[in-house]
Amino acid sequence: MSKSNEYSVTEAGTLMAAGKLSAVQLAEDCLARVEQREQDVQAWAYIDAQHLLAQARASDRQPRRGPLHGIPFAAKDIIDTADMPTEYGSPIYAGHRPQTDAACVAMLKNAGALVMGKAVTVEFAARYPGKTRNPHNTAHTPGGSSSGSAAAVADFMVPLALGTQTGGSVIRPSAFCGIVGFKPSFNLINRAGVKPNSESLDTVGIMARTVPDAALMFSILTAQIAPDFGTLSNPRIGFCRTPQWQHADQATATALEAALPRLVKAGARVTEVALPEKFDDVVKAQGVLSDYELSRALAYERLTFSSKISSTLNKKLAQSDKRTCDEYIVARKLLSECRKLLDDVFTDFDILLAPSAPGEAPAGLETTGNSIFNRMWTALYVPAVTVPVFTGSSGLPIGAQLIGRFGMDHKTLVHAEWVRRALT
Amino acid sequence: MSKSNEYSVTEAGTLMAAGKLSAVQLAEDCLARVEQREQDVQAWAYIDAQHLLAQARASDRQPRRGPLHGIPFAAKDIIDTADMPTEYGSPIYAGHRPQTDAACVAMLKNAGALVMGKAVTVEFAARYPGKTRNPHNTAHTPGGSSSGSAAAVADFMVPLALGTQTGGSVIRPSAFCGIVGFKPSFNLINRAGVKPNSESLDTVGIMARTVPDAALMFSILTAQIAPDFGTLSNPRIGFCRTPQWQHADQATATALEAALPRLVKAGARVTEVALPEKFDDVVKAQGVLSDYELSRALAYERLTFSSKISSTLNKKLAQSDKRTCDEYIVARKLLSECRKLLDDVFTDFDILLAPSAPGEAPAGLETTGNSIFNRMWTALYVPAVTVPVFTGSSGLPIGAQLIGRFGMDHKTLVHAEWVRRALT
Repeated sequence: MSKSNEYSVTEAGTLMAAGKLSAVQLAEDCLARVEQREQDVQAWAYIDAQHLLAQARASDRQPRRGPLHGIPFAAKDIIDTADMPTEYGSPIYAGHRPQTDAACVAMLKNAGALVMGKAVTVEFAARYPGKTRNPHNTAHTPGGSSSGSAAAVADFMVPLALGTQTGGSVIRPSAFCGIVGFKPSFNLINRAGVKPNSESLDTVGIMARTVPDAALMFSILTAQIAPDFGTLSNPRIGFCRTPQWQHADQATATALEAALPRLVKAGARVTEVALPEKFDDVVKAQGVLSDYELSRALAYERLTFSSKISSTLNKKLAQSDKRTCDEYIVARKLLSECRKLLDDVFTDFDILLAPSAPGEAPAGLETTGNSIFNRMWTALYVPAVTVPVFTGSSGLPIGAQLIGRFGMDHKTLVHAEWVRRALT
Repeated sequence: MSKSNEYSVTEAGTLMAAGKLSAVQLAEDCLARVEQREQDVQAWAYIDAQHLLAQARASDRQPRRGPLHGIPFAAKDIIDTADMPTEYGSPIYAGHRPQTDAACVAMLKNAGALVMGKAVTVEFAARYPGKTRNPHNTAHTPGGSSSGSAAAVADFMVPLALGTQTGGSVIRPSAFCGIVGFKPSFNLINRAGVKPNSESLDTVGIMARTVPDAALMFSILTAQIAPDFGTLSNPRIGFCRTPQWQHADQATATALEAALPRLVKAGARVTEVALPEKFDDVVKAQGVLSDYELSRALAYERLTFSSKISSTLNKKLAQSDKRTCDEYIVARKLLSECRKLLDDVFTDFDILLAPSAPGEAPAGLETTGNSIFNRMWTALYVPAVTVPVFTGSSGLPIGAQLIGRFGMDHKTLVHAEWVRRALT
């Protein structure tokens, strides 16, 4: 029988509600897994076993507060916690302890969830990688910038994690680590207490091992009733190669194309969709926003602690400085237009199907891979889910990305689960 | 001869560049004014004379770094400063000292400007008033939530201040205090280190005594060359009563209507503009966003320190909680549509002219007045400037609000100055 750290949240919650699993047992099993694997995976920027166990004991004494009662989660270390250090992946903030919890952390705690620790982030969720490795093969990157969140969930150290996505920092690492990643519609999960990278893009997202688990966490964070995954209707799927299709490797392209008849066979209506020409410039516009805002968001750190910023990031910031306010305005206007155009595209589709990443997690830890298949959807504010349904030539996971209409987050999750079942 | 604390930034800068005014002299004159008036006006949440003088002495020793070199400014106490407490107008944060400066503060310091102190804010920039009074009549509100910023600038304690606007928190207090207030296009001034209220709306803005001073501060914060106010071309003005016109008092309505022929005489093309019907719901949609986001942004404070939140705000937050995610999505979609429609309106106009507030600053300190004439423009992301050109029946100032096209902030400032000159 599997240990409780391998259960989905739904399974663990059911057992807990029936008195067959305690929060302490779940915490102990998660901690045992960390003990066993952390040396190899290095998912955690901070973890305090005693603090988790104390929370779990308190949890077991209290009446159940809902489906996340007694469930541990990891918070990306770009997200403030009042009871743990928050270092933003930067030596500038070594030992920094915020006075407050981020709003998302406070809401999860209020629902009974337990903060297990802080998951490794790329420096300021920007570029320079942290120490984390891919649990499927530690010679490969786990992806980033939510590296630790993805690796910890994938490696059964914790069932849920919070990440953030400005380019592709939730979907890409989730795909590389073979888990479910969910980037909701822009700003549906409140960002108070999340260190800003690019405020027009930063989106709090969720890592889980099942789609219903991700939906459960999302419903708590948005005070909604979780969607029903019992009977799923057949979706209208638009297969969207995106203007970046040439970046997809052979395994990814083949897997997605081979999936289409299987989806049709399972009952979906599948049509190829070409995006209007304006979308050719969306990724570039996302880059302009990201550059312009990041270089300004870090004004204090750059002016005060430049020598403690990695040379990789310093170089990037110096380039970003060259973006002008005029370029920035033009990029924002293009993105506003394309958001409207994309909403029109969804008249004919429930979800779009696209690559989650160019391929498997690349070998090496020097970079966290390419966000080229994520940046468009982040900038267009629509919900995106990656589900682990394919395997690449190195035996590492490859995800399929499902994109939904702005604000239709529950429907997107439900249809993503339909696709996952059809392809598994 | 007037004291240097009464100079505009342009005047002070010219004298400083010529060696005729020192930063220490300017700081001393500003501090003397505070000494003389603070007991009545109560603009400051924190001020440290010795720290300002030390900065000024250092400034005088260094080569000039630009037009703000040695110029003091106030930061609304919702904006983080590493060298001063930042209390967000709440006893929860008594004595709180952030580890970092907000990006906007860091950028101003880097340009040579000196942080004079923290200006009083309404509790969390939301609702419950601070202690500040209107310098023109201390029995009247200065407006809010950037109460201290407006009062300190109006009362010649400091020439420049940073504020924030989520509804009408820059334009309204500026109008009530008879100064220039500038709310730029959304998110042009970076918000890192500004305590979030409603992230889809929060906009860092500027208080000054002249339009060119506001433009100077804005240019530093956006790394642009400041606009030229030498020769101003005649603007195409749309007189916009807005769907809220019935809230304008007699003095405001009369003053604006009487201004129209004067503007025409000065060379403007003035046309009355009616906004499309969808705009009738914009203020309501702004309210939905503001409610939904504020109640979530303060999740930590509410769950941990509820008893230290004012009953006024607690009551407001309890109501706000009732906003659903679905309502929120609908409101965001409406605002996206109206932003596009408003951009089309600007094909025919350089600026719109509208009330800055319903009238003069109301008597009493229990509320900070009504933001009904500001919320639409904040939610539509367009630049807005108030200029002090009228006087009400109680002898208090009334502003005229000029609204520009998204991203055309310099042009808006220049045309606002044209209007101010024409009406002064």
